[in-house]
Amino acid sequence: MTEVKTYPAEYLKEFSSKVFQHYGVPEEDSILAAEVLAASDLRGIDSHGVARLHSYYEMLSSKRINPIPKIEIIRESASTAVVDGDNGLGLVVGPKSNKIALEKASEVGSGWVSVSNTNHFGIAGFYVLEALKRDLIGWAMTNTTKLVTPLWGAERMLGTNPIAIAFPGKEEPPIVIDMATCTAAYGKIEIAKRNNVKIPFGWAIDAEGEDTLDPNMMVNGGALLPLGSDRDRSGHKGYCLAVMVDVLSCVLSGANWGPFAPPFTLRQDIPKRKVGKGIGHFFGAMKIDAFIDLDEFKSQIDDYIRTLRKTKPQAGTSGPILPGDPEREAEADRRINGIPISEPVIRELSDISSKTGIPFD
Amino acid sequence: MTEVKTYPAEYLKEFSSKVFQHYGVPEEDSILAAEVLAASDLRGIDSHGVARLHSYYEMLSSKRINPIPKIEIIRESASTAVVDGDNGLGLVVGPKSNKIALEKASEVGSGWVSVSNTNHFGIAGFYVLEALKRDLIGWAMTNTTKLVTPLWGAERMLGTNPIAIAFPGKEEPPIVIDMATCTAAYGKIEIAKRNNVKIPFGWAIDAEGEDTLDPNMMVNGGALLPLGSDRDRSGHKGYCLAVMVDVLSCVLSGANWGPFAPPFTLRQDIPKRKVGKGIGHFFGAMKIDAFIDLDEFKSQIDDYIRTLRKTKPQAGTSGPILPGDPEREAEADRRINGIPISEPVIRELSDISSKTGIPFD
Repeated sequence: MTEVKTYPAEYLKEFSSKVFQHYGVPEEDSILAAEVLAASDLRGIDSHGVARLHSYYEMLSSKRINPIPKIEIIRESASTAVVDGDNGLGLVVGPKSNKIALEKASEVGSGWVSVSNTNHFGIAGFYVLEALKRDLIGWAMTNTTKLVTPLWGAERMLGTNPIAIAFPGKEEPPIVIDMATCTAAYGKIEIAKRNNVKIPFGWAIDAEGEDTLDPNMMVNGGALLPLGSDRDRSGHKGYCLAVMVDVLSCVLSGANWGPFAPPFTLRQDIPKRKVGKGIGHFFGAMKIDAFIDLDEFKSQIDDYIRTLRKTKPQAGTSGPILPGDPEREAEADRRINGIPISEPVIRELSDISSKTGIPFD
Repeated sequence: MTEVKTYPAEYLKEFSSKVFQHYGVPEEDSILAAEVLAASDLRGIDSHGVARLHSYYEMLSSKRINPIPKIEIIRESASTAVVDGDNGLGLVVGPKSNKIALEKASEVGSGWVSVSNTNHFGIAGFYVLEALKRDLIGWAMTNTTKLVTPLWGAERMLGTNPIAIAFPGKEEPPIVIDMATCTAAYGKIEIAKRNNVKIPFGWAIDAEGEDTLDPNMMVNGGALLPLGSDRDRSGHKGYCLAVMVDVLSCVLSGANWGPFAPPFTLRQDIPKRKVGKGIGHFFGAMKIDAFIDLDEFKSQIDDYIRTLRKTKPQAGTSGPILPGDPEREAEADRRINGIPISEPVIRELSDISSKTGIPFD
């Protein structure tokens, strides 16, 4: 086990925002980007918060990401838009594009925005929480660098392509779904590798396409398996979902899909072929009272949540939880007790500090 | 093995439509409903075609379904609508509601329709194929009678809640995704039961909530597992998707969600509690050229398909296929060689024939 130190979310947020500014990101954008990272850390998704700041820093300092993008709507209808993110930070292009979807939903009942020429946007959950603030149903998807094999394949062809969607409750907290379309997150493979333990069957294949329980074999040229894992357990369905996210985020916007998604970090290879610009996102928003009275919807969601919580529990468990429960519990704790940061991440943040002169301790 | 006889799709379609008419369904609606059933049989999804006609017949003859529904838009915005299906056949309410989504997409870029007070609508794939005819991206979802447990639950609380979406190619056939959000279809459990063979691990639990390989234990009070099966293989994700479909189809429209979905057949119990009207569907449509030139989109989809087909194959397989391949191949075969109907289904159709006087042989 590595050592862990806790930091207040605000402290990390300020550090992140100063780092972004150091590389030319305008102050307002830097705060937005830092907020997306902080949301991830607060919600307990440690892999997508400041643990990624070093990658963003690398990409900015090597000028692979444009700090002052001219984010433009390049095509538009009453309920849809396509945005070109001008190779900006996904943490900035994402929230701004999402806002267009939210505004269109308020105007014509729904808004759907596909985004090209962008970069990794943090957690998909951030965007659907923004929709909840306006009492809208929010959707968010993105493609990512290839890591996942299609069912019956033996190589990385697709990203982990997450889907998020959220529904507000009245007295109950919202239902917040935020899930990658592969079986296990890459972060879990890395943890198993670090701790030198086996991974469960159904998570990964090795470079030859054989099932493997060894995290090293996945990392060294293997691939993650789609949700469902194998044919018997419907791995084709996770593969279908990854394709869906890819087409909505990339083919619809003109971004690089499938194996051609540009990498997130400097150490990853840049694909030889380009089929579009940057990676792609897809945002959606639906105005609830365009369908049903808002209060009625929220009351039904409360009823829905309470009904599911009363499900007869499987032996050895305390019964089903609701999507969003673990993240909400993490946030309640971390707002008070701070964000636990592991020693390797602290080293990365210190490295950024030494390179930029922005204090971190 | 049971005996199988093949029938031309047109013959089955005509029989179905006459049966619907016999119970008061107007001719035009009866043809529409028969077409949805025939689409399922043609595409090789035997469980959702004429194999279900006996259930529809039972529900119509016992007046549990309204043969002449007044299908109404009860709320509407430029890009959204809510439809009350007046307890009509889902095979009629579905196509008519879907058409509203398609028309809105043509007008304002996208259309989203949530439907209450309806009944089972056949295969979700039918609706997205309708969208393809207009060069639109189509979405379809529906809830169904409870069969699936949430992860960590030990009882049926959710339907098999399918998601369908389709994307048109140019020279390549379209990508057509149509998948239930549970690991295995109930039909597969029934086949295993009939053939007296075990089911794979991860499909089902018994009435006590224990994992089971015995199809009888699932049928007799057990439940299907969500896509992902268990915690290790992310069964919470399939559960999340089932909740998503349920909320979009039912909470948004005012239909019965979760365990309160009314049954599809006479032999199933009617839930004691009502939380809305009938079951619910959700349809979406997106106008491609509201995002990107149609021709450019289709060419990229061709490229996408060809790229995925070139994936290095896993040993023992011929490599990844594309979503929609098996159904398209079945249709090509069955249009020429007819629909194979098993002997138990023939007996059911003969029973309908004897009750209605409509010839079948």
